[in-house]
Amino acid sequence: MNVSERRLRRDLEANAEFGALSAVDGHGRTVLTGTEANRFARDRFVDRLEAAGLDVRIDAVGNIIGRWVPEGVDPSAAPVATGSHLDSVPAGGIFDGPLGVYGGLEAVRAIQESDRGLERPVAVVCFTEEEGQRFGNGILGSSVATGQQPLEEALELENESGTTLADALDRIGYHGDGRLDAAEWDCWLELHPEQGTRLERDGAAAGIVTNITGITHCELEITGEADHAGSTPMTDRTDAFAAASEVVLDVEEAANRLVATESATAVGTVGSGTVEPNATNVIPGRVRLGVDIRDVSIESIERLVTELEASARRIEEERNVEATVSRPYDVPPEPLADRCCETLDEAGAATDVDTLFMHSGAAHDTMNVARVTDAGMLFAPSRDGISHNPQEWTDWADCAAATAVLAEGIARLAES
Amino acid sequence: MNVSERRLRRDLEANAEFGALSAVDGHGRTVLTGTEANRFARDRFVDRLEAAGLDVRIDAVGNIIGRWVPEGVDPSAAPVATGSHLDSVPAGGIFDGPLGVYGGLEAVRAIQESDRGLERPVAVVCFTEEEGQRFGNGILGSSVATGQQPLEEALELENESGTTLADALDRIGYHGDGRLDAAEWDCWLELHPEQGTRLERDGAAAGIVTNITGITHCELEITGEADHAGSTPMTDRTDAFAAASEVVLDVEEAANRLVATESATAVGTVGSGTVEPNATNVIPGRVRLGVDIRDVSIESIERLVTELEASARRIEEERNVEATVSRPYDVPPEPLADRCCETLDEAGAATDVDTLFMHSGAAHDTMNVARVTDAGMLFAPSRDGISHNPQEWTDWADCAAATAVLAEGIARLAES
Repeated sequence: MNVSERRLRRDLEANAEFGALSAVDGHGRTVLTGTEANRFARDRFVDRLEAAGLDVRIDAVGNIIGRWVPEGVDPSAAPVATGSHLDSVPAGGIFDGPLGVYGGLEAVRAIQESDRGLERPVAVVCFTEEEGQRFGNGILGSSVATGQQPLEEALELENESGTTLADALDRIGYHGDGRLDAAEWDCWLELHPEQGTRLERDGAAAGIVTNITGITHCELEITGEADHAGSTPMTDRTDAFAAASEVVLDVEEAANRLVATESATAVGTVGSGTVEPNATNVIPGRVRLGVDIRDVSIESIERLVTELEASARRIEEERNVEATVSRPYDVPPEPLADRCCETLDEAGAATDVDTLFMHSGAAHDTMNVARVTDAGMLFAPSRDGISHNPQEWTDWADCAAATAVLAEGIARLAES
Repeated sequence: MNVSERRLRRDLEANAEFGALSAVDGHGRTVLTGTEANRFARDRFVDRLEAAGLDVRIDAVGNIIGRWVPEGVDPSAAPVATGSHLDSVPAGGIFDGPLGVYGGLEAVRAIQESDRGLERPVAVVCFTEEEGQRFGNGILGSSVATGQQPLEEALELENESGTTLADALDRIGYHGDGRLDAAEWDCWLELHPEQGTRLERDGAAAGIVTNITGITHCELEITGEADHAGSTPMTDRTDAFAAASEVVLDVEEAANRLVATESATAVGTVGSGTVEPNATNVIPGRVRLGVDIRDVSIESIERLVTELEASARRIEEERNVEATVSRPYDVPPEPLADRCCETLDEAGAATDVDTLFMHSGAAHDTMNVARVTDAGMLFAPSRDGISHNPQEWTDWADCAAATAVLAEGIARLAES
């Protein structure tokens, strides 16, 4: 099979023109769900699917699926599906999403040009609103396609100006019919930039994702007493910022300990902190912390949450503050299918592309799909790990190499 | 001598009407320099000075001085001066400032009604813009009256709408002539609410301030690397918030250590902190801290600044962040005159008011005056230490008791 770097690059560069940012360094684009840029990107993708002979369907939340039934294959057989998304964050990069969408299409074209005898159809998918910039919290299209979010509920989501997803899709001509059902797929593969430095550091051209981490967000509110920084003696203070600082270091230490002993993939981050009243000459009376906890093992996540709660209890006892912990966001870890991982491993060997097994620390549509069918995920290297930024970059040769592994994997999965 | 609680209270209550806040609990007022409320408060004070037979003069920065020359006293003798300020912070209390201004006037009236034979004139002063809410950083009028800030420079200070102090004073009729010169005073006493809980805790009715703390503000900028909280392993992070948390705890620990060993009056506070980009799922790339350091000993302040700098160097070495420390604000500690402290101590005994010696953790006009003549300061109790707030309160009996000490102190100082 011959994946064409030139053809893939042309598709990605053409797609990069939609919502392109001219005034920034790098290659930036802003393609938010329901905008004109999103319409143009979708229109071109549909054209390219049809040009390759795929049969295109749009569902009610705007998910796009192009289906190729090779000659002699039973059209009702469960397909091997692949894809990703075309929307971006504001001022995002040109690979995050499009690489998986156009990599999937290029894989199909390479298989079409080969002499591989498939037993199943192959489908290429673009999910709606993966980034969650306008409607909901992200991975929206795949939530609906996997039955985790009711279709009607999704269609009623509103953007900041009060437009519903249904209306926004209507306006760009992508409010289709019915609901794409990922449970009907034989299996699924997604190609995506890594958004980290593991592949770069280990000199591998592609990463086979065995697990997608779970994500828990906790919010801490620590209440002490705001007082005059000059006339309140050290012995008479209830300083919320000093108390919060202990929690920040406790979270870091607990995650480091877990990494050193039981789970190298665990991470714990205090990403946000707001101090009140936030004046140099006033002892802080209240601090809010936002904590992000992730691992591929649910036990690790629970362990870190427990240690966070213990830290909160400790500062309550030792520092006389009040500390409340809430847990507003919780997504369990998602192990990917052995069958898909093994096939991608064999595909790497067959195409002579260096691969390694790794986990994904970020959420992806694959996380949803894995709940209803066998799913696998392939990472391409990200230069310096930069993501959600016009500086995001994957070398064209790396795009092609990972796409070759994807094509070989799809072919092998569709051959049986 | 008989200080009249009723007369003092009537003056303070009348003054509290100017800029009064009706919609808040407690007794709030907003009297910013150059506003109508400030004009009314000044007009009434001038009236009350003149009603008591004092000769009033306004200087070019709006400082008001009322001078009483007792019969038979050489009018050119250096006066004993007393006073405070009439401006407030936004939504401030009714005692912070006015207690010293009207307490000073009441002291003069009490002396006038007594048979004390003075040798010197007595002056009652209202300094302009002590709070620094509109023009400059505070204690402005006393800075000019003590030659620490050039008169012309002060007059050119602008408020946020670009009006100069000179114009603002012109509008309310308080842009007078010349410059009040505190160096010509024999000595100075200021009565002020404590803004702390020391007197309340120790059950004393008045505090004799022996030292005003120095104040140093340091700003830290800690730069790490903003990264994806999911795809960046614990071992590959440069987390500016975790680094900053060490500094917050280092500052607290260094101050506690100093309090336990060498200086019970030392305080170190990290009052402000801002985290960037401040998103739960992003490792913080930059944190700015605002640190407030105070003590009555300059050595303590320098010690705490040195420990802060050592903490910054340590996180640079151990955590690979960059940490820069600047020192934008620096006021040295100001010991008050033994002569004034001793006289106030004797005055407390003579008037049967319980006093104790203490330091001031906040800045006051007296800090400036002490640089050019003998100065003393007297604190009245603040309920719960609340200050700069409509909940600020000093019982009327406490106001009168402290004013009795002040009157006795002024009389003793003016008798020789």
